[in-house]
Amino acid sequence: MSFETSVGTSDADSITVMGRDLANELMGKATLTELAFLVVQRRMPTPEETRLLDAVLVSLADHGLTPTVLAARLTHTGAPESLQGAVAAGLLGAGSVFLGVVEDTVRFLDALGDDVEGGVKREIEAGRRIPGLGHPVHRVQDPRTPRIYAIAAETGLEGPYLTRLREVSAAHARQTGRELPINGAGVAGAALADLGFPGPLLRGFALLARTAGLLGHLAEEMQSPIGMRLYREVDERAKYAPPTGE
Amino acid sequence: MSFETSVGTSDADSITVMGRDLANELMGKATLTELAFLVVQRRMPTPEETRLLDAVLVSLADHGLTPTVLAARLTHTGAPESLQGAVAAGLLGAGSVFLGVVEDTVRFLDALGDDVEGGVKREIEAGRRIPGLGHPVHRVQDPRTPRIYAIAAETGLEGPYLTRLREVSAAHARQTGRELPINGAGVAGAALADLGFPGPLLRGFALLARTAGLLGHLAEEMQSPIGMRLYREVDERAKYAPPTGE
Amino acid sequence: MSFETSVGTSDADSITVMGRDLANELMGKATLTELAFLVVQRRMPTPEETRLLDAVLVSLADHGLTPTVLAARLTHTGAPESLQGAVAAGLLGAGSVFLGVVEDTVRFLDALGDDVEGGVKREIEAGRRIPGLGHPVHRVQDPRTPRIYAIAAETGLEGPYLTRLREVSAAHARQTGRELPINGAGVAGAALADLGFPGPLLRGFALLARTAGLLGHLAEEMQSPIGMRLYREVDERAKYAPPTGE
Amino acid sequence: MSFETSVGTSDADSITVMGRDLANELMGKATLTELAFLVVQRRMPTPEETRLLDAVLVSLADHGLTPTVLAARLTHTGAPESLQGAVAAGLLGAGSVFLGVVEDTVRFLDALGDDVEGGVKREIEAGRRIPGLGHPVHRVQDPRTPRIYAIAAETGLEGPYLTRLREVSAAHARQTGRELPINGAGVAGAALADLGFPGPLLRGFALLARTAGLLGHLAEEMQSPIGMRLYREVDERAKYAPPTGE
Repeated sequence: MSFETSVGTSDADSITVMGRDLANELMGKATLTELAFLVVQRRMPTPEETRLLDAVLVSLADHGLTPTVLAARLTHTGAPESLQGAVAAGLLGAGSVFLGVVEDTVRFLDALGDDVEGGVKREIEAGRRIPGLGHPVHRVQDPRTPRIYAIAAETGLEGPYLTRLREVSAAHARQTGRELPINGAGVAGAALADLGFPGPLLRGFALLARTAGLLGHLAEEMQSPIGMRLYREVDERAKYAPPTGE
Repeated sequence: MSFETSVGTSDADSITVMGRDLANELMGKATLTELAFLVVQRRMPTPEETRLLDAVLVSLADHGLTPTVLAARLTHTGAPESLQGAVAAGLLGAGSVFLGVVEDTVRFLDALGDDVEGGVKREIEAGRRIPGLGHPVHRVQDPRTPRIYAIAAETGLEGPYLTRLREVSAAHARQTGRELPINGAGVAGAALADLGFPGPLLRGFALLARTAGLLGHLAEEMQSPIGMRLYREVDERAKYAPPTGE
Repeated sequence: MSFETSVGTSDADSITVMGRDLANELMGKATLTELAFLVVQRRMPTPEETRLLDAVLVSLADHGLTPTVLAARLTHTGAPESLQGAVAAGLLGAGSVFLGVVEDTVRFLDALGDDVEGGVKREIEAGRRIPGLGHPVHRVQDPRTPRIYAIAAETGLEGPYLTRLREVSAAHARQTGRELPINGAGVAGAALADLGFPGPLLRGFALLARTAGLLGHLAEEMQSPIGMRLYREVDERAKYAPPTGE
Repeated sequence: MSFETSVGTSDADSITVMGRDLANELMGKATLTELAFLVVQRRMPTPEETRLLDAVLVSLADHGLTPTVLAARLTHTGAPESLQGAVAAGLLGAGSVFLGVVEDTVRFLDALGDDVEGGVKREIEAGRRIPGLGHPVHRVQDPRTPRIYAIAAETGLEGPYLTRLREVSAAHARQTGRELPINGAGVAGAALADLGFPGPLLRGFALLARTAGLLGHLAEEMQSPIGMRLYREVDERAKYAPPTGE
């Protein structure tokens, strides 16, 4: 009984990745972004798709000293010999709270169907936040959003998800009289969905982008460490509260 | 007391990554590979550097159903709701045994200094393997090696590491009468070092490349799972050997 | 502004864990199991609680060459220098598929309220599996189940979760005419809930138990490795299926 | 070809762990600590061994808001739905910097042979720190150390590692005129070695102990979160330093 895979294989003379000769057809011709598209969608992206995907990945790569970046840096503090451990720790916090919006936005748009006004109304009445709208820092406009829409327009790749997300935003503004910006996570999710990536893989592209960002933080941590200092300060400011009520 | 970082920051209207305006200077202009170079080396790569770096990353992204890929797939079997956990598990095995060669090659070249013949002789006499030479499958030639050298030549980026690695290979052949191919991990390490990346970060770029490859394997695992079947078979073929000698 | 914690603190002369002097009140007096209970529930367990908790932990520690054990062993194959990475990889697959039952059983019992017959009927009619019932290998009886019930009886700790789980099993047998054994994961979840652990922590105790089991597997992997051989065999039996349909 | 293991197996009616019937011989009879000893050493510990091992594990379980605890809490902030990810992140920093001492002490004692005075002299003259001596907080005495020695004496389990570590401390004091306390990590390593655990597994027992401690921190994080507040504060105090010198 065999284990079937289409991702990669090799023999004495050649290496194959998703049906392409690695040395002759991919190395020197494809970028890492194109390779990531290829191994997931099983075809090479067009130059337009690559441009939009790179823009999305670049938009997701870094958000400063986030909880996941701090987790990676603190892990490096204790195990500097295991860079893979620090990177892994930096990815493990990429869950529902931060990356959820990327996926939730697409799920919401999927569930919405064509009745945008009705769907938005339902959420507002139920007092639920609409995924993809609003940002704690970028209150008026998330700078990533118009850029993704501009690149999607230039490349002719604005598809149903990006379009509907804009309709959702407009419907929300109409119904509430309050403009909430489409946030960068939401627009990234919609763009990845329009690029044809399935729901469960959206988070994967955010992880790929963040790995790049983590390399920058870990390179900086090696030069100008924050981890040990952060720990020391927390330790000094720790206030011990003996357990009560036994 | 502040926490200083040069990687990224943001305010209400803008996001900055390594001194560039994310929306206007990076999105739509830089690829993920260029961004990874930027955040680590703190400058944009030239087009030639990007081309060589992409070739290296693409060469490292996949090696079929490796132990780390199997770890990622088996983790997905148990926790399909946590893609980040499966990716993290797939990175954690990227240690001394598989990725060691990338780093060991550069360390060996660093330690070698200018006396290539003497250094190689010392290793041969001590019965040690020379890192970067030989491959269990690609016995005559690793197809990635001439391709990296060709791209380095085209881009004018063959530097001291790539050159010396070739000298090491030639010295080894002269002294032993046996040609061992320069392997893909060794040439990748030398190319990354010639691109200016410091030793402790070399592994990081292999991790970035593998994250892309892992997305392909996890996408495939979602469609045609191997993990559960592999477990079931191992379980059936497990032979219980009661502990002895108490 | 301080960071408040009740878990632990130390000064020049003493170390405190959950309000106890580590050296004088805990070391030599408390077991690791008692310590785990203490740090989560903020009080020492009674001897009876310790006995039941140990029985549950021991019952969850090992299940042979499971997917998570294989992930840990394969990670060790690539990074033997990072035991923490192998253990982490072995925990990351402890998600919804395998450990879900522990939590799902408790959630189901919580949702059930007092109408056991009606709740069970609803599940059967909806064609849903009842969490905690049935096991692919232990078809007649899971040997862990009567043991946990016996220890709970001996210690006087059979509480509402364990009791109701038995009622669920009986109701299911009555309604379907088919006896499904209460499985080890379900009974472990119910016992942990009766011991007073909150839902989100149940999985944590399974992780603690598995860490112990993983040490056994990794010790064995160091002596008689399976990882590399498993990889080699999968690699040999891999059948490359070029992507189709572009 | 089979996959041989002695850790565990099961059939329709029984589950076996390291040659024992899980339900009848281990559950209700063995503690988690005994089980961990059993799966690694392939025999049940004596009551004395269990007592010493529990004391060591309890001594290693918590050290307050350490870098690894902060990494676990920050991971929980982003992915509260994946407790396994937070625990894994909390283990990944258990590397050379913090846990190294446990292993380094044993390695040093192994290398020392019988010439304690000479070996200590060599380290002092070379300006190297002697692993296992000195503690940044417990400058006069680490409270864990006399306790482990007392329990080892009571149980008759003070073996060559614990004895030699005391000789090293005395030789160091004689030669330098300065008393450095034996620290808790060093004494734990020596005790684990005297208990018969092999070098590469010492770290594993520290990981097991820390998993228990992490459960306490994660339980507390669910009730009184620190992660988000820590991130917010770091973010506010982050000072952006644009990269220079291009």
